[in-house]
Formats: sequence, C-alpha cells, structure tokens
Amino acid sequence: MEALSKSKEERMINFQTSPDQYKHWKLNVAGPVATLTMDVSEDVTLGEGYKLKLNSYDLGVDIELADAIQRLRFEHPQVKAVVITSLKPRIFCAGANIYMLGTSSHAFKVNFCKFTNETRCAIEDDSRHSGRRYLAALNGTASGGGYELAIACDEIYLVDDGNSAVSLPEVPLLGVLPGTGGLTRLVDKRKVRRDRADVFSTLAEGLKGKRAKEWGLIDDYFPTSKFQESVDARVGEIVGKNGVGHASDGIKLNAVQLEVKPAGLEYKYVNLVLNREQRYADLTVRGPEGDSPTTPEEIQTLGDTYWPLQAYRELDHALLHLRVNESEIGLVCVRTEGNSDDVLAVDKTLEVNKEHWLVREIVLYMARVLRRLDLTAKSFFAIVEPGSCFAGNLLELLLASDRSYMLNNEDEQVRIAVGKLNSGALPMSNGLTRLQSRFLATPEKVGEVLAHSGAFDTEAAAEAGLITFAPDDLDWEDEVRVAIEERTSLSPDALTGMEASLRFAGPETMETKIYGRLTAWQNWIFQRPNAVGPEGALTNYGKPTQAHFDFKRT
Amino acid sequence: MEALSKSKEERMINFQTSPDQYKHWKLNVAGPVATLTMDVSEDVTLGEGYKLKLNSYDLGVDIELADAIQRLRFEHPQVKAVVITSLKPRIFCAGANIYMLGTSSHAFKVNFCKFTNETRCAIEDDSRHSGRRYLAALNGTASGGGYELAIACDEIYLVDDGNSAVSLPEVPLLGVLPGTGGLTRLVDKRKVRRDRADVFSTLAEGLKGKRAKEWGLIDDYFPTSKFQESVDARVGEIVGKNGVGHASDGIKLNAVQLEVKPAGLEYKYVNLVLNREQRYADLTVRGPEGDSPTTPEEIQTLGDTYWPLQAYRELDHALLHLRVNESEIGLVCVRTEGNSDDVLAVDKTLEVNKEHWLVREIVLYMARVLRRLDLTAKSFFAIVEPGSCFAGNLLELLLASDRSYMLNNEDEQVRIAVGKLNSGALPMSNGLTRLQSRFLATPEKVGEVLAHSGAFDTEAAAEAGLITFAPDDLDWEDEVRVAIEERTSLSPDALTGMEASLRFAGPETMETKIYGRLTAWQNWIFQRPNAVGPEGALTNYGKPTQAHFDFKRT
Repeated sequence: MEALSKSKEERMINFQTSPDQYKHWKLNVAGPVATLTMDVSEDVTLGEGYKLKLNSYDLGVDIELADAIQRLRFEHPQVKAVVITSLKPRIFCAGANIYMLGTSSHAFKVNFCKFTNETRCAIEDDSRHSGRRYLAALNGTASGGGYELAIACDEIYLVDDGNSAVSLPEVPLLGVLPGTGGLTRLVDKRKVRRDRADVFSTLAEGLKGKRAKEWGLIDDYFPTSKFQESVDARVGEIVGKNGVGHASDGIKLNAVQLEVKPAGLEYKYVNLVLNREQRYADLTVRGPEGDSPTTPEEIQTLGDTYWPLQAYRELDHALLHLRVNESEIGLVCVRTEGNSDDVLAVDKTLEVNKEHWLVREIVLYMARVLRRLDLTAKSFFAIVEPGSCFAGNLLELLLASDRSYMLNNEDEQVRIAVGKLNSGALPMSNGLTRLQSRFLATPEKVGEVLAHSGAFDTEAAAEAGLITFAPDDLDWEDEVRVAIEERTSLSPDALTGMEASLRFAGPETMETKIYGRLTAWQNWIFQRPNAVGPEGALTNYGKPTQAHFDFKRT
Repeated sequence: MEALSKSKEERMINFQTSPDQYKHWKLNVAGPVATLTMDVSEDVTLGEGYKLKLNSYDLGVDIELADAIQRLRFEHPQVKAVVITSLKPRIFCAGANIYMLGTSSHAFKVNFCKFTNETRCAIEDDSRHSGRRYLAALNGTASGGGYELAIACDEIYLVDDGNSAVSLPEVPLLGVLPGTGGLTRLVDKRKVRRDRADVFSTLAEGLKGKRAKEWGLIDDYFPTSKFQESVDARVGEIVGKNGVGHASDGIKLNAVQLEVKPAGLEYKYVNLVLNREQRYADLTVRGPEGDSPTTPEEIQTLGDTYWPLQAYRELDHALLHLRVNESEIGLVCVRTEGNSDDVLAVDKTLEVNKEHWLVREIVLYMARVLRRLDLTAKSFFAIVEPGSCFAGNLLELLLASDRSYMLNNEDEQVRIAVGKLNSGALPMSNGLTRLQSRFLATPEKVGEVLAHSGAFDTEAAAEAGLITFAPDDLDWEDEVRVAIEERTSLSPDALTGMEASLRFAGPETMETKIYGRLTAWQNWIFQRPNAVGPEGALTNYGKPTQAHFDFKRT
C-alpha cells in the first residue's frame, strides 16, 4: 500500500489497489470458478513494528480482499463459485495481526474492524443478491479473524490432518472480542447453540473436524489426501447447478482518478473540501452531465465511467478517506450539484434494466456505499441549496443524513424529488428503506411521498416531513453556520454513540447487530485497561510479561 | 438506604425498602388511582460528596421507585392509573445526579444505569401485561433521566408555563448519552423522526409544549391553571374505561429475610456462598417443601411466603447484591435442591390459574427476575447434581446459564424436566423463550422437548441438546473445578461483551436494544477521556474549568 500523501504527520492510507499490485492475495479466475488464495507477505505491512506472520492480516491485506470481491462482481460476472483458501502450509489464516492491534490507536482499531466487517458483509451481499457461492476451503488452521472470514462464506470445509482447527481465541488470549462479526455470526448466522458458542469462544485451541462439524462450526471435514478433490467436487456441484451466472464479459474497474489537494480531494463527480480548523468537511456530489445511456449495452460500453458507478466509487473512496485519514473531521456537510431530472432518468434506467447483471451490480454497489455512509462515525448534515439535485438515489444522501437544511426562498426555488430507487433498491443495514426508517411513526407517509407527483419545493418538503429545517434566505447563512459550530463543539464520542442509536431504529438484522451491538462492546473493551493498559492482555500478548486483570465486573 | 454490612471496604448497598421508609417518593393510593410523587431529599444520598438537588436521583432514589412499582402490582391490584409527578416547584426531575456520576467508579455507573433501565422496563411490563396505565404529569421541567422516566410511561403531559421543557441534555452538557434507554425509546417507542431526535438530543435547553407535542416528545400540554384538572380528566377517562382492574385486596410484601454471613447470604430458599479468593459464587435455589397450594385463594392466603414469590424475591435480591456489592465475583455456579415434582406442581398451579391477578403477577415477576439474571454481567454455569430440581421454572436457570454441567452417573441418576412454564410464560428480553433461543438452528426441537414425557436423565438431556457437558463421576469434580478456574482467569470485560453477544441471538426488541446496543455505547463513552478524563465533560460539569475534547472520531 503506498501512501497517498504525507503532508500530515499521519500516514495516509490508500484504499485503491488492483490484482497486479496485490502483495497478499492471488485471484485466479477459471471460467465459472474463482480462487482467492491468501499468501500474506510478512514484510509488506501498512504500519511499522510488526510482521504479518501465519497469514495474519492488517488493513492493507483486507483492502486487497475487498478489492478482489468487488472486481469479481464487475469484472468476472460469469463466476459462480469462489473458493477462499491459503497457500501457506498448515495455516489458513491467523486473523488480525495482534501486534498491529496492540500498537494501533483506538480510532484506528475501531475503523479497521469496521472496514473488515464491511468486507465480510460484501461477501454475504454478493452471495445473497448475486448468487455467487463462497466456499472457505480451510487447508489449515483458521483462528480469530481467519475463522471469521470463513463464517462470512456460505460453506466451510476443514482439512482433517490431526492438527488443523477452527478457533476464536480472542477472549482467552487477548482479552478482546472476535471483532469482525464473529460472535454475532456464530449464533445468528450459523445458529450455533449459545452454550456451545460460549465454550468455543473461550477455547484458545479451538475445535477440530468432527466436533467442529457436530457443533455447526463447519460444514464438513476431509482427510488431507481427499481435501482438494472433495472441495473440487463440491465446487463442481455448485457450478453445475447454479443458474445465476452468465456468459457476459465483465467491465474493467480502473483506478478512481483523483487530485489530492492540501485541503481535500477532487474527483470528477465528487469534491471533498476539508475545513480542518473547524473540523468539518464539505462533500459535494455532482449529478450526471446531460443525457445518460438507457440500455444495458450502452451502460456496458461506458463501463466504469457510467455516472452512477463512477460517482459512487468516488463517494466510497471519499468516505473511507474521511474515516481513516481525517479522523478529526467530525461533521460532513453533504451537497449535490446538477439537474434532478438527469438523476431521476438514471434511476429510471437502473430500475427498468434491473435484471441485467451489470445494472444489478451497480445498484447493489450504490446500496453498499450508502450503507457505508450510514455506518460512518461522523455527523452528516444535508445542505439543500439552489442548483442542487437531491433526487432519486441522491435523495438517499439527504435521508441518510442526521439532519437536513433546505433553503426557503421565494425567489429562488429549491426542490428535492423521489425516484425509482427510493422504494426498496437501496436498503439500509436494518432492511428498511431510508424513507421507511424516517416514517416509522407514520408508515402511510412512505407511500404518499413515493406517490407524490413532481418535485417537492421547500414548503412541500417540510410539510411532507422530508427535511429537518427550512430557514429563509435571511436566516440561512447564520443558521447553517451556527449548526456547524454547535455540532463540531460536542463530544465526538457522545455523538458517535448517539448517531449509532438514532440512525437505526426499527428492526435489527445480523448486520445492524454487528455494527451496533458487537462493535460497541468491542469498542468498550478496546478502551479497557484489561485489554490495552500496560498490564492488559492485548498489550502483553507474546511478551515475557503477563497480563493482569482488574476483575471487577461491570 | 442503610448499609447492609460494612465488613468490606466498599459500602454495601441495600436494595430493600418500603413506603414508610421512603425518603424521596410519596406513594398515595386512592381507589383505582395511585400517585407517585417525587420529592427528593437533597441530603439523603447513597454515596458521599453530592447533593440531590432539583429532584435529581441516585441509585437510592431509584430503589424506592422500583419498590413502589413492585408494591403497586402486589399490594394495590385495584389501581388502574398511576400518575408520576413532582412536589418540587417548576421541576419534575433533573435526571441522574451528575456529581454522583462524576465521582462513581465505572462499574458502579454501569450497574446504576442497568438498574434504572430495569425499573423503567418494569413500568412498561406492568403497563403491557397488567394493564395499569402510567401517566407522567410533568408539572415542571423533565431533563435527562427525568424525561427518560417520562418516556417509560404510557402518556406524557407537560405544563405550559412558559418555562417548563423536556430535554435530553447529556450529549451537549456532559459528553455522555441519555443512558436510561432514552435514545432507544425516543426513536423506537415514541418513533420520533430520527432527524428531530438528533436535534432534540443535542439541544441542552430542550423543547417546550407546542414544539414538543408536534415532534411527538409529549402527548399534550396544558397551561398551569388547567394542568391539574386536565390530568385528572385524563385519569378519569382511564379509570372509567380500563377494565383490567379488580376489587381484590392485594397481598403484603414484607421485607425479604436474610442472614448476612462473612462469605455470603442465607435466605430461606436461596443460599449464596461467595468464594471471593477464587472470584466465584455458589448460588443455590431450593425448591418448595412438600405440598404447595393449588387454588388462588390458598395462594393469596400464603401471600409473600408462597414458594415462587418468596424464592424469586430472594433470588432477585441475591442477583442485585452480586452485581453491585460483589463486583469481583465473575462466575456464579447455579444449583438447585429439592424435588422436581414439587416444582412442576407449582408450575401447573400457576399455569392453571394464570387468569387470577395474583398468579399473573407472580409469573410476570418470575419472568422479570430471570431476565435480571440474563442481563447480569457475570458468567453463569448450571451445575446439575443428585438432589437437584432443575424442573419447570427452575429449568430456566439452567437454560439462562452460559453453560451447564450435568453429572452422568449410572448409580445415581440425575434428572431435569420441562414444565408448564417453559413454553412461553417466562420470556427473555428478546421475546423468545429460553428453549427457542437455545434451538434457533433446530426450532422443531422446542416442540419435541416440550412434548417429552417424563424427566430427562443425563444421557437423554445431552441427546436432546439441553445441557452442555455430561461428565461421568470419575471426571466430574476435576472437570467442574477446571471449568471454574478457567472461567475466572479470563478478562472480565471480554467475558461481559461476549456474553452480551451470545445470550441474545435471534430477534431484537426495544429492551434488547437498550441493554445491548445503547448500554454498550454508553459503557464505551463512560470510559472515554472525553467524558471521564481530567478534561472530560462529565468531570468538569459545574466546575469553573472547561471540558476539552480529543476530537478524533472513531
């Protein structure tokens, strides 16, 4: 991973890569079968002071995995089965690197866990919506994050070599939780009995084939001599049966182009301006320019320059950059620029052609980027001004924001509008649309808003409950300025906890449990002296010194 | 609150009280209407170094509130409406006392929040299942925990005196969350729109009548001159309409009798032995002795000495004692002693007579105590030995435990059994029975287990998936001893987070969101320097010094 810029003291992390740059993974595609092989280079680390032994990983390794999964979806749509395995002898993956965790700041640890969780959820999203089947072929021990990667797959096969095991040793060895969704996936996804999950999660050495299968931790186990052929046979079954694949060629995902400026990042459709002194950013998304294509063939020809794909890739990149490289930015003011009708036309094209594989992938990706925004620990205010285009998919940016301010000016009307993608194509992690989340108290309003003919001017938007505030032009500047000043003066921790609570009302899913409940507990533990103090377990792991606990239960 | 004992350095907190001992509340019952009036005595505090100004509260105040609600249910079954109001001019309740929070240990803060949440949930449980309607008559400002108490009620009325407001000022003033379920109840119970909830929760001064009603924060507001009569009128409507009340006399809840020993507490049906050196406790619940009554009349005559009521009150007391007064105890080994058939006979009586008000209240209370156990941040191992009676309602103790060990001995058969109360009467916070939670992967087993005729011996119990381990008599002592040693050697924080994740698989409810998500975030914030460090907001509240934040977002 190269540094993007070193103008600040902290090293900037680059979230872009491609298979020819991978240091830790090999992506091999052979017709309908892709093999993702983990072969971590010990010395190629994102930070300093640790080695990535035993296929352990840091953020750099996971950025490659996220890239590979993304490319499978867009560049290799014919793939029906993805086998994740290891090139190291006797070890599948030892999980997140402990020395990396032990030397990382709290904020970095938390964002590292969040990103790796999003990568695992992207695997599950691919499986659920695009029908690719993921197989974890554990040709050696999978411990901690290694086993958590396996549970993100649809099927888990373990070699029975008398030695290889699956394990979640974080609690007994490190005094922290399996933080990549492990505990939640154990009881919610694989539905492992809770007392068995309790035993397994406190057993440093984990469980081997027979018991692991009996407890539901793996799907099957095979002796070393039959492992490869057994996995191949299962892959053959999937490839034979799975009808979702298609012969179409993929499109190429080229690197996202951006210009790094002292105070921000400039992309084609996204502009990020960092007001570092005031701890807020201005994030502007530009709508499509002029006529967009209307057929899948035209879209496929445009490839990654097609507006929704390019704009959302840029937005995704900007969000990751904000999270990890600009941790002191507490508030993001979201704006849009462009023509609402052009945005709505894109929505319509995407809706009409949703059965086409590329259109499906684009919409699923837009949904993932918007969920990335929902899950970003920064405040978001939508600022709706003349020239904006909060319509259709871009209206989701407003609905995802913690608040919205829409100018109320008789002389210069501002409008927002719903489109074809607001009614279900871009769900939140809790399974609801953002309109449903907004109108939990008055669910009938969802239909009314969706049935509304034409755009909403400011007063109609306020009346419909779509916006928070509608200051007139006399108050506008002051009100927005004061809101920004107030927000950025508040405790960032209290805001993070508050936003995590208020953004996800209503139903819960495995995803919201991972990002809400499990993450919050892990964040708590990541602060506790028993983990990260001088005598903590994480601090003392692998050292001759021993951890000592304050045994008070809370 | 008197100290229970001062043999340890820490002062022991006494969870027992009664109306004639109340220092902070007045409970007035007039026919079908009860009025709970808050009039906190500034100087009667549980800890030192703070005064309870403006009807702010500490744990002592909430212990009285919990007692009052419990007594309403058992001693005043004819009550149909409960009005909660204040005797202080212009202030309803200022919430949890900030100086108390600022000077409390982390463990105490967390347990304080948990207890107050359980008190609020007990109000909602009463409303939902026993049909009593709670009205918050806010004759003055309700801020923080004061407003959170109001949202736990069914209806909220605010005086419109130009001054009184409702507010959640924790984020702006203290850098922590409204920790008594406030944020969750705001968007999940009252379904306040998330952007409005965001504004409200960052607005120190809160909102007054008109806007508060418009945003759904209160149900109505009345001018000072009409406040009392308007509330009375609403109470009159409820009392007139509500058919759930009944003329029956209540039963008296006498103080739970116990003997405080150096190493534990001895009650009639519960015995708690503290192995403080080894950081675990032995908790034994004894079954009923001989024939139990079978009719409501006999039960009413026995009153609080009827086995399930007395045993569960003792268990409840022991759990609270363990949480707050024995924080270093990390593991509780749960045993039962007695005759399973006698326990099952009690279950049958409770099931047959469930329409009787007292029986209903007893079963609802048993369910609350078991939920208190589910939510206790200690590990629980059920130890099933000869002479035990893990049957029916006591089987829930085993199912609630993180693991169970059942002796497998041909010569001395041990048995467990299901009863009438295992199929729905004693739900967990997530709405499932403990059997449903156990068998999420194989829901058909719930029915099979419930339909099983007779008791399960050890092998049948293992076969049915009801227990975790079944060591034989040769291994028994070693296996249990090693399990205890291992458990108590682990990081207490990691265990707390792990148990909170594994105990509540499956669906989520407002309650599980409060205890899982919101609590975890608050616990995290309660550790952060931005709240509790020397420059933190909580530390600096009310001082001439100002809070300074590390603005890194996580």
